[in-house]
Amino acid sequence: MIGADRGVLARLRAHRRSPLHVVDPFKVPPREAVLKAAAVQRAGLPFLLLASTDYERFDERMPAYVAQVKAAVDIPVITHFPPRPGAGLPVATGADALLAPALLGSTDPYFVWQSLLETLHVQYRRGTAQEELPEFLLEAALTFGDDPVSAAVMHTEPLGRTPAQLDRRIETIRAFGFPVVYLYSRFEQVTGRVCRYFRDRLSPGQLIFIGGNVRSREQVEGYLRAGADYVVFAGALERADWREELDRLCAAPGTRERSGAAALRRT
Amino acid sequence: MIGADRGVLARLRAHRRSPLHVVDPFKVPPREAVLKAAAVQRAGLPFLLLASTDYERFDERMPAYVAQVKAAVDIPVITHFPPRPGAGLPVATGADALLAPALLGSTDPYFVWQSLLETLHVQYRRGTAQEELPEFLLEAALTFGDDPVSAAVMHTEPLGRTPAQLDRRIETIRAFGFPVVYLYSRFEQVTGRVCRYFRDRLSPGQLIFIGGNVRSREQVEGYLRAGADYVVFAGALERADWREELDRLCAAPGTRERSGAAALRRT
Repeated sequence: MIGADRGVLARLRAHRRSPLHVVDPFKVPPREAVLKAAAVQRAGLPFLLLASTDYERFDERMPAYVAQVKAAVDIPVITHFPPRPGAGLPVATGADALLAPALLGSTDPYFVWQSLLETLHVQYRRGTAQEELPEFLLEAALTFGDDPVSAAVMHTEPLGRTPAQLDRRIETIRAFGFPVVYLYSRFEQVTGRVCRYFRDRLSPGQLIFIGGNVRSREQVEGYLRAGADYVVFAGALERADWREELDRLCAAPGTRERSGAAALRRT
Repeated sequence: MIGADRGVLARLRAHRRSPLHVVDPFKVPPREAVLKAAAVQRAGLPFLLLASTDYERFDERMPAYVAQVKAAVDIPVITHFPPRPGAGLPVATGADALLAPALLGSTDPYFVWQSLLETLHVQYRRGTAQEELPEFLLEAALTFGDDPVSAAVMHTEPLGRTPAQLDRRIETIRAFGFPVVYLYSRFEQVTGRVCRYFRDRLSPGQLIFIGGNVRSREQVEGYLRAGADYVVFAGALERADWREELDRLCAAPGTRERSGAAALRRT
């Protein structure tokens, strides 16, 4: 266990098979984030993610942002940001957990894994109190499809989809025992087949998150049927009628009018 | 850079192609270690290793042991021990560096890599001052041949020697950017062919250490010809006439009478 044990991984394992919403704290004003967090909790989602590929002045913005969101909800708040050389992963004290990505498809060992060591080293050097650290969730992060943004920031190459290419990643993910595996496509969509391929080969304790261009309830259901544990949507709520959109994305199958995703969770 | 930068990795890269001696601090009395350290330095070896698979009461024994050895020599002293769950790698303050092994052939993700994160976490929690930490040398450690000792302690499986098996490890070692690769056989010997196979495929900055049952100058020379950067001998000096044995192991090629390995180093 790295960071403080706040029971987040245990809770992630207990609430599998749910959509999750990501708020981008560097795009969404705090007031809107608070409203969305409360709506997400009402809709039955078991966590809220705060994430972005881009960030600036993280340590100025995030503690107050996290505190405001936390004050509005009881569900755990998890951050997800890329590391930067020299600083490691940005750490938002006050968050319950952080997803610590190992970008296995990066050509730079820093982003593959060394940033995780640097993160601990930097917090250590800074004298952050242990109990202030969020729980670290070690994550294998794989990107699919052309993605010049991820390539520029983290030197990732899109993962090929042949069985041999997938098998090599799966072998590493199993050997390294990542509790979380994040499959992401910035401009395309991860296929249900890829999701199923990972689910059938990872160990049962390894949680699969799928994200990127999730816009419909059908997609959410398709990924859940393909074995995803969490289906992450972000941009879908970046519109004026986000409340209706949230209801649509979280409605239980066959009951489009209902909000609340509790019925979806099959654990 | 994890731990304090003491220039050890830079020195390792500058003094490639040398034998190295390992003293086991849990077998060799400190007085004998001091004599051996001084002799090793006189013989021209650029580092001294302190290492063992077994250890007990590390924190009681090692600081004084390291201090005595350090007082006798100018060459850097590097420790190499396996981690233990809950404690991480044992850290000898006073040592210049520690080899931090990722046991890629372990079936337990703790020994594959998670121990490295735990090590930082534990030192952080303990409040060890940053500047007291040795320099961490991230190492991919691979074991060859049947080895029930390593299997019992670190859940390692011997690495197969087919090109496909070696290639998968090499791919990981390159992607993760380990600066040190340690090829070890406890009861057999790593072959020159395996050494050459790794050398031809790793990046030039990745240093190859070979160890296990190195007993003759011919072996040392064979590994150096096969591209090893450091050839490690331990048990060879566990005998009464260790001074003569050291001279034999370190003599420059064709000058068996000479001691001193300086002429061997081709950098």
